[in-house]
Amino acid sequence: MQDKHSVGLVKTEYYTFADPPEKFRLENGGKLGPVTLAYETYGRLNRNKSNAILITHALSGDAHVAGIHSAEDKKPGWWDFMIGPGKPFDTKKYFIICSNVIGGCKGSTGPTSVNPETGNPYNLDFPEISIGDMVNAQCHLIDHLGIGRLLAVAGGSMGGQQALQWAVAYPDRVAGVIPIATTARLNVQGIAFDVVGRQAITGDPKWKNGDYLNRGTIPSDGLAVARMLAHITYLSEDSMRKKFGRKRQETNGEADSVADFEVGSYLRYQGESFIRRFDANTYLYITKAIDHFDLTEEYGSLEAAFGLTKSKFLVMSFTSDWLFNTAQSKEIVQALNVGHKDVSFCEITSSYGHDAFLLPNPVMERLITGFLRTLRN
Amino acid sequence: MQDKHSVGLVKTEYYTFADPPEKFRLENGGKLGPVTLAYETYGRLNRNKSNAILITHALSGDAHVAGIHSAEDKKPGWWDFMIGPGKPFDTKKYFIICSNVIGGCKGSTGPTSVNPETGNPYNLDFPEISIGDMVNAQCHLIDHLGIGRLLAVAGGSMGGQQALQWAVAYPDRVAGVIPIATTARLNVQGIAFDVVGRQAITGDPKWKNGDYLNRGTIPSDGLAVARMLAHITYLSEDSMRKKFGRKRQETNGEADSVADFEVGSYLRYQGESFIRRFDANTYLYITKAIDHFDLTEEYGSLEAAFGLTKSKFLVMSFTSDWLFNTAQSKEIVQALNVGHKDVSFCEITSSYGHDAFLLPNPVMERLITGFLRTLRN
Repeated sequence: MQDKHSVGLVKTEYYTFADPPEKFRLENGGKLGPVTLAYETYGRLNRNKSNAILITHALSGDAHVAGIHSAEDKKPGWWDFMIGPGKPFDTKKYFIICSNVIGGCKGSTGPTSVNPETGNPYNLDFPEISIGDMVNAQCHLIDHLGIGRLLAVAGGSMGGQQALQWAVAYPDRVAGVIPIATTARLNVQGIAFDVVGRQAITGDPKWKNGDYLNRGTIPSDGLAVARMLAHITYLSEDSMRKKFGRKRQETNGEADSVADFEVGSYLRYQGESFIRRFDANTYLYITKAIDHFDLTEEYGSLEAAFGLTKSKFLVMSFTSDWLFNTAQSKEIVQALNVGHKDVSFCEITSSYGHDAFLLPNPVMERLITGFLRTLRN
Repeated sequence: MQDKHSVGLVKTEYYTFADPPEKFRLENGGKLGPVTLAYETYGRLNRNKSNAILITHALSGDAHVAGIHSAEDKKPGWWDFMIGPGKPFDTKKYFIICSNVIGGCKGSTGPTSVNPETGNPYNLDFPEISIGDMVNAQCHLIDHLGIGRLLAVAGGSMGGQQALQWAVAYPDRVAGVIPIATTARLNVQGIAFDVVGRQAITGDPKWKNGDYLNRGTIPSDGLAVARMLAHITYLSEDSMRKKFGRKRQETNGEADSVADFEVGSYLRYQGESFIRRFDANTYLYITKAIDHFDLTEEYGSLEAAFGLTKSKFLVMSFTSDWLFNTAQSKEIVQALNVGHKDVSFCEITSSYGHDAFLLPNPVMERLITGFLRTLRN
C-alpha cells in the first residue's frame, strides 16, 4: 500500500562539472576535476524557481534523504519522516534537493573515486576538503538546476555547518537557514574524539598508509572502533540507560569479550555494519573537514562572519546533546543577535543526545513547518 | 635538598601468600596461587596498630603512591602531594599502605605473571578478577602486617570502588572510608567507553588472541587508542579548552595526521607513553572489574549493601567529572543516609574532570585532614 505521505520511488542522479582543464578550485588552493555530485530531488520546482530547499547531510549521510529506491527497499531515506507530502519539508509545496558532499563515498567524487590521472582510486592523493568546498560544490549543482536563490538550507551536525557556511558565503542565495544540533566551531572535546577515531583507522595495519583499496584489504577493525566511539558521542547517558542499562549479554566467558554487556554487543554491531557502508579514508577527510570548520577563525569573529548574512535563521539544539551541545548553538545565536539578524532559537527537550535530530520530534517538526511558512523568496 | 614534607626514599616490598595447594579463592569460584602483592608503606605502625590507612589505586595506578625510589627519581609516587609529614595523610601520625591490585601489572600477580603450571605468562588463562578479589587480597596483606582494623581506606575512581567494597565486605575492619570520584556501579556510558577500549585492543592483530607475550609482539596500536579515548573521559571540555583550545600543531600536511590539533598531539603522546608502562591484557581484566562492580546487583539494593557497614564515610565528587559524575556519588550518599550511616559528602568545584582527584586541591586536602581526625580506632 502506497504511503500518501511518502515521496515514494526515487532515483539518485549525478551531475558532473569542472572537467579538466577547468577544475574546481578548493579553499586550500588545490584543484580537483572532474567533480561529480550524487543528488536526489523530490517535489517540483515552481515556475519562478523560488521553492527550492537544500538539505545538507551529516558525516555518514548521503543524497538519499527520503523515499525508497525500489519497491523491495525496507529502509527509506535518512530523514524520510521530515520530507514528503504533508510533512515539514512538504513536497506538495517545496522542491527538495539533497546531494552527497564532495569528498564523500556515496556517489560524489571523493577518496574512493578514480583519479583520472592515474586510473586508480585517489586514496590519500585526494585533496583536503573543507565545509566551504562542500558548499561551493553544492552551489554548482544549484546553478545547474537553474536556481538563483534557495528558499532554505537545512541540516543537522555537519549538515548544520554547511547551512551556516551557505548563509555566510552566499548571503544573496538563501532566504532561510536551519542549522540543527551544530556548531560554528567544534569544541576541543569533539575534536579529541575525532582524533582518536582517526588514530584507530590509521593505526590499523590494514590501512596500509591509506592505500588499502589498491592492496585488497580494508582497515575494518580501526574503522569499526572509530564508529563505536563516535556512536557513544551521538547518544546520551540517559538514552543508553533506558535502552540497555547494565544488562548483561550471554557470552562464553572469554576474558577478551567486549560484548558481555548489551551495550557492548550493540556498539559492536554498529561498528560492523558501518564498515560495510562507509570508507575509512573518507572518514578521515570528512571528520577533518568538521574539525577544521571555524567561522570565528576565518572571519576574525563570529559576529564578523555573520555580518553580511541576509537570511532568516532557525537554530535548534537538543537538551541531551553533549557533542554539539546547546552552548555551541547559543554561540551562533548570540553572534546573530549582536548583528540584529532575524533569528529564532529553540533548545528542544530530548533524551536522545546528538542523534535527536535524526529522530521524529514533534517540536522540531512544528518549528520547521512554521519557519518555512515565514520565508519569502 | 631534602623536602621535609616528603616520605623520601621508599622501597616496594612483596608479600606472597596462597601457595598451592592452598590457593586464593576468587569471587567467581576460581582459585589462584601463589599470589604476590607489591606494596609500599610509609610512616610507622603504632603500638596498638590503630593508625593504619590503606590507599587504593585506580586503573593504571600502582603501589608507589608517595616518595621516590632513588635519588635520581624525577617523579614521586602518584599521590605524593597527599602523603607525607604534615600532609593530609600525615606520616607523622599514620601508617600508610598501598598495594598494587591483584590482576595488576605493577609487581602483583596478574596476567603478565608466570603461571607456575606452564612456566609461561598467564595471559588469558588468568582468571577473571573482581573489585571484591582485589579487596580480599588486600585483606591478606593487612593480616600479614598484623593489622586488625584499618583506621581508613581511601581511594579515587577504581580505588573508590575498593574503598566501598571494604566498607561492605569488612564492616568490622575499617573505621573510615573515603570514596572519591567513584561509583557503586558504573553508568552505561562509562561501560561503553571501556567496551570500545577493549575492542581497540582485541581488534589489534598484534594482540594475537591475548598470546602476544609468547609471540614477541605487543598490541601497542590498540592499547594506545584505548588510552587516548580513556584520557578524554578523564578530562573536561573546560580543562581541554583552557589547555589546548583549537590550537593547531605544525604538520607536514598529511591527510592521515591525527595531530594537526595540539590536543591530538597531546593525546597521541599519552597513548605512546602508556604502552611503555602498561600491559594490554591487564587493561582488559582491570576495566572489566571496574565495569562489573555493582553493589546494587550483588546485594539487591544499595541500601542493603550498606546495611551492615559500621564505618564513617567521606564521599567526594568533582563538578566537572562527567565519567564518575556527582550523580553516582549522590547515589552512594543517599543509600547511606537511608540507613542512617555517618556520611559527609562534598561536591568539590574543579575544572579538571575525573583527573581532579589526582591533582592538588585545597578543599579535598582539608576535608580529608579533618575527616581523619574524627576517626577512632
